[in-house]
Amino acid sequence: MANTFGHLYRVTTWGESHGGGVGAVVDGCPPQIPLAENDIQPDLDRRRPGQSKIVTPRKEADRCEILSGVFGGKTLGTPISVWVRNEDARPEAYREMETMYRPSHADYTYQAKFGIRNWQGGGRTSARETIGRVIGGSIAKKMFGQLAPKLRMTAFVRQVGTITARAPAVGVSYREVESNPVRWPDAKEAAEVVKLIERVRSEGDSVGGIVECVIKGCPIGLGEPVFDRLEADLAKAMMSLPASKGFEIGSGFFGVRLRGSEHNDEFYMEGKRVRTRTNRSGGVQGGISNGEDIVFRVAFKPVATISKAQKTVDVKGKSAELKARGRHDPCVLPRAVPMVEAMSWLVLADHYLRDRAQMGSR
Amino acid sequence: MANTFGHLYRVTTWGESHGGGVGAVVDGCPPQIPLAENDIQPDLDRRRPGQSKIVTPRKEADRCEILSGVFGGKTLGTPISVWVRNEDARPEAYREMETMYRPSHADYTYQAKFGIRNWQGGGRTSARETIGRVIGGSIAKKMFGQLAPKLRMTAFVRQVGTITARAPAVGVSYREVESNPVRWPDAKEAAEVVKLIERVRSEGDSVGGIVECVIKGCPIGLGEPVFDRLEADLAKAMMSLPASKGFEIGSGFFGVRLRGSEHNDEFYMEGKRVRTRTNRSGGVQGGISNGEDIVFRVAFKPVATISKAQKTVDVKGKSAELKARGRHDPCVLPRAVPMVEAMSWLVLADHYLRDRAQMGSR
Amino acid sequence: MANTFGHLYRVTTWGESHGGGVGAVVDGCPPQIPLAENDIQPDLDRRRPGQSKIVTPRKEADRCEILSGVFGGKTLGTPISVWVRNEDARPEAYREMETMYRPSHADYTYQAKFGIRNWQGGGRTSARETIGRVIGGSIAKKMFGQLAPKLRMTAFVRQVGTITARAPAVGVSYREVESNPVRWPDAKEAAEVVKLIERVRSEGDSVGGIVECVIKGCPIGLGEPVFDRLEADLAKAMMSLPASKGFEIGSGFFGVRLRGSEHNDEFYMEGKRVRTRTNRSGGVQGGISNGEDIVFRVAFKPVATISKAQKTVDVKGKSAELKARGRHDPCVLPRAVPMVEAMSWLVLADHYLRDRAQMGSR
Amino acid sequence: MANTFGHLYRVTTWGESHGGGVGAVVDGCPPQIPLAENDIQPDLDRRRPGQSKIVTPRKEADRCEILSGVFGGKTLGTPISVWVRNEDARPEAYREMETMYRPSHADYTYQAKFGIRNWQGGGRTSARETIGRVIGGSIAKKMFGQLAPKLRMTAFVRQVGTITARAPAVGVSYREVESNPVRWPDAKEAAEVVKLIERVRSEGDSVGGIVECVIKGCPIGLGEPVFDRLEADLAKAMMSLPASKGFEIGSGFFGVRLRGSEHNDEFYMEGKRVRTRTNRSGGVQGGISNGEDIVFRVAFKPVATISKAQKTVDVKGKSAELKARGRHDPCVLPRAVPMVEAMSWLVLADHYLRDRAQMGSR
Repeated sequence: MANTFGHLYRVTTWGESHGGGVGAVVDGCPPQIPLAENDIQPDLDRRRPGQSKIVTPRKEADRCEILSGVFGGKTLGTPISVWVRNEDARPEAYREMETMYRPSHADYTYQAKFGIRNWQGGGRTSARETIGRVIGGSIAKKMFGQLAPKLRMTAFVRQVGTITARAPAVGVSYREVESNPVRWPDAKEAAEVVKLIERVRSEGDSVGGIVECVIKGCPIGLGEPVFDRLEADLAKAMMSLPASKGFEIGSGFFGVRLRGSEHNDEFYMEGKRVRTRTNRSGGVQGGISNGEDIVFRVAFKPVATISKAQKTVDVKGKSAELKARGRHDPCVLPRAVPMVEAMSWLVLADHYLRDRAQMGSR
Repeated sequence: MANTFGHLYRVTTWGESHGGGVGAVVDGCPPQIPLAENDIQPDLDRRRPGQSKIVTPRKEADRCEILSGVFGGKTLGTPISVWVRNEDARPEAYREMETMYRPSHADYTYQAKFGIRNWQGGGRTSARETIGRVIGGSIAKKMFGQLAPKLRMTAFVRQVGTITARAPAVGVSYREVESNPVRWPDAKEAAEVVKLIERVRSEGDSVGGIVECVIKGCPIGLGEPVFDRLEADLAKAMMSLPASKGFEIGSGFFGVRLRGSEHNDEFYMEGKRVRTRTNRSGGVQGGISNGEDIVFRVAFKPVATISKAQKTVDVKGKSAELKARGRHDPCVLPRAVPMVEAMSWLVLADHYLRDRAQMGSR
Repeated sequence: MANTFGHLYRVTTWGESHGGGVGAVVDGCPPQIPLAENDIQPDLDRRRPGQSKIVTPRKEADRCEILSGVFGGKTLGTPISVWVRNEDARPEAYREMETMYRPSHADYTYQAKFGIRNWQGGGRTSARETIGRVIGGSIAKKMFGQLAPKLRMTAFVRQVGTITARAPAVGVSYREVESNPVRWPDAKEAAEVVKLIERVRSEGDSVGGIVECVIKGCPIGLGEPVFDRLEADLAKAMMSLPASKGFEIGSGFFGVRLRGSEHNDEFYMEGKRVRTRTNRSGGVQGGISNGEDIVFRVAFKPVATISKAQKTVDVKGKSAELKARGRHDPCVLPRAVPMVEAMSWLVLADHYLRDRAQMGSR
Repeated sequence: MANTFGHLYRVTTWGESHGGGVGAVVDGCPPQIPLAENDIQPDLDRRRPGQSKIVTPRKEADRCEILSGVFGGKTLGTPISVWVRNEDARPEAYREMETMYRPSHADYTYQAKFGIRNWQGGGRTSARETIGRVIGGSIAKKMFGQLAPKLRMTAFVRQVGTITARAPAVGVSYREVESNPVRWPDAKEAAEVVKLIERVRSEGDSVGGIVECVIKGCPIGLGEPVFDRLEADLAKAMMSLPASKGFEIGSGFFGVRLRGSEHNDEFYMEGKRVRTRTNRSGGVQGGISNGEDIVFRVAFKPVATISKAQKTVDVKGKSAELKARGRHDPCVLPRAVPMVEAMSWLVLADHYLRDRAQMGSR
């Protein structure tokens, strides 16, 4: 609840952009899973600011430290506490946020709800908060390395502004995605997107986009009737990410145009396995994984914090003009990819344990 | 969890399509809220099969009965148990589902997960399950009648197949929506949609669509950082409805094309109240309601059960051809409207109580 | 939470003493467990009023009906809704409770908390509420019949007033306990206790006592660090029963007098199994079951509702004298036995599934 | 769940005796509560090893550090992460625990459940784990300083071995309790108890006892029907503390001997307030606080780790003799007092917020 995600594989995140640090406590993880800082660090590095010229230049090494729950290189089955110290904090760069509300940011709603907010770097609303999610996701990935080693996940940027990648989702290679700073499925096309992001940044503006995620080898049977359908928990997970505005799975919004006879995924047998010839269901039927690829998309709006002048109001209710300083992403998409993956790992890990509770080891 | 929705305003639903009945237990509702069966019945009637010529002809009066939690016409603050008896059950009409998996339905995944399923009318996967949700939503609506009487909600059908309603969301009238069997925002245009649905039905097929929901007068401050953002819980709620494939709020998937400077909602003062000139945020910023209209859309795929012949496999792993009998909706959209509303009421009720817990009465 | 018990094996109870009925929804139960009404009825009969001359004479057949979650005689893995209709309701017998608070009963605190209460028969505070618990417990017992068939549980009355049974806990036979109306471990001694209870009743008074429970064959490893220790959840379960005032496990309150060297349970090997020579731990060490007998005791105060005249106040804040009418137990102990068992089954079932989630099938 | 306590005021603890440190994340705390490290430190100092000659000599300053959730000296309403670094760790002193199971300790059950354990200083089963609880409790105490400033709590040691304090619970002074190393209600009598503990220590043994807790000024209405009764959650909280074996509230185990007419607490009016003349209920009726003093007792067994030789088995299933080295408490009671208080604060805080959610600010 609130800052805890999951029922059995539970991740509690804490921390503000400017403060002692950010971290996560992972509870419910099975014991005897090999785990060390360097299992987590690569994902943090993919999320890290300053990783390329098209993301925020804030300099954070984001080195994680495991404080508990691991002994002799293996998980103990008790809470795993991992944190990252904040280093390159420059609160003075956010001084105007103390008095002004950034349009479409959380400044106003936090103030309205809590009557107080940490205005330095956005406090808890900073994308820095997602470090805890990535920590939790990386540990979940390690867990599946033991429990469902065929499970594979690749998220990538499908769209930035009006540029859309053509590559079919199911064929996208993790290596190709990670070979370019946009995390575009086709490294050659990526140069054009880099240009767009650089232009947007030079204009003091930002741009949105879509992340797509493909999960292969998901065990059959994950997801629970009726409220905790797998796609419902994926939707919640994705819509809990900063700046996300939409979620769709399989045929999604496009599929509404089809007839049932066009949309239904015909079953057939592949040896002893029940398969579907098409995958408009996106790997989930009746809320439960059917063993086909899970494919979904998440829409991210353009980042709210821009350096262009904007009209707004201040905390005293007076009109004001704001030009945000601080260091911001012109496009959150490249860094959203590991966030989407992390949240997906959390959802899968939770449902894997839930299924095992009710059904036993499969 | 699973068949319970909400942390403080908690609805547990139970029941299969064919069996003793379906119902809900609502726990956590404040006491002293006036409540009687006829507060719930109108919403059940809007969800009911047989309500018009474009929905399934199954004849269910769906008369609800309150079994507990109400005394002298008011809630007690203890669990409210409400149920509806199943009447027009015809299990024999589903006999082929005993042995065959309907393409894109939950037959296969339930069998794969549980090793058993109630194949009569879809059992727990039937839309009949949503009766419990509507019960919970109607009681939440009554609660808000006392606690936030300015709160108003109108859901309607935005799209069926390729036909899209032009009416701007914020001006849609509940009365107009309820004046036509499609629940279309413009009653005059609805005739065309009725024709489409009838044609689809006559072809033994089905068609999808989009429901849009507008919530006015939502208290400021609902939603919690970081996982339980209001839009995240709305997304989960909607994606837990049968046949839903997508969710978007505010600018949604379209907004990704915009620049931040185009997308941001400029703040201004309306008297002492902070307002936004546009509402691309959809009434939620940083996961917390800002007092503007909450506007979101839900994509529903075409109903999986159709009477056209389809290729599939049976439970023994042999190829088969299925022509579904039974009584089915050619288009779930008209009946999805009260379901979307019900789930929205549940989300708001839960977050209202959660906000009150942490912040006190506002 | 509140009216739901358990995280994975979840029982939600509902219903008041006077109203439509009482029942439970059991969610999370594994599928394919054989289940029918007559698996539940015997435990309800043990809890039932009017079962002997020493309990309340209210006439309730307490026939249960399964409304959902079972198909072809087996559980579906979806919510199991079971209820019992209220029949012998005599609200007029409770008329004085409408205006007066029974000393040491929940009348005043419910009124103070909720501002409303169902004064007929105690409403939700009636022991009748425990029907839902017994339903949930009986289903859990059936589950263990499949999953851990060596698990056995026997609760019995250890003490009534100042009369204490001498039988050692571990040797008590279920058959002997059920052979006498007190549920005393030694049927011969029971006559004296019956006399005491009858004398107390004839005086318009009530008397308390202690229930002891022995669980044999509990799987090793149930219980979780650190808050959800097995004994912590047993304590909560027992202290949630009406009229309970104390809980102790193993050496309990007596053990505080001992030295560590006297109290510690020495380990030894019995073949390949680690055993303890004594069992002052009561079957739980560090919050986790160790395979020895789980032994605990629950203190029940004398029933608050008595027909002797008592001084009290009325709802308007005036002094009053109350002689309770209605039908009440002079001693809740005989009927508390199946309640204690039911709550124990719930705790074990929940922890069994939790352990299986984290550790896999053992 | 597991390492998280509470539904609305939620404390997640982490950490092992030997490792990076121990800490807690507190989620759900209202914003704008003044909070600094020195609000927490005094309670940690009361829990700290080495605080007096009768507790374990391990040298830990236990200086806490707030890492998040506080800004400008006030809580933000977001997660408060607080930790304490481990300093005086001497893993080599526990080398024999790597291979041997301490009788009546958690060594065996952790190994049996998880297949792995941190044997250094007991790992997660160390009393060091309670640091996180004390952190959470101290923050809750600060919260009540704002929200219910009349609330007062005093826990003290009622019994050590066979020595029992005579002071009536309701008159015990916090200052007197804290004036002696035993936390005995009568400082003069304490010398005798110190002698007992010192003798026990010199014998390489340990001794148990009872902590009693009195809560004055508790708001009326805390606690929820039916499973989350206030006494049920207090019982769970106390029974989750290391070494606790029993819990009783009000008349507890003694009260079972009484007749209802002797036990019932007669109501009377004190001005406009409903009071009871006696308090055998212990401040809770029907699971809900009635405004009288909440009084309960917790039994703690003698500490399992003793330096006297004991027979046991090793991890390979061979008989062994163990003389524990390491630094241990001969009597956990003095340090249990702040633990009991901390858990009580957590229960009250959670129920306060739950009551406010359902009932609004009172």
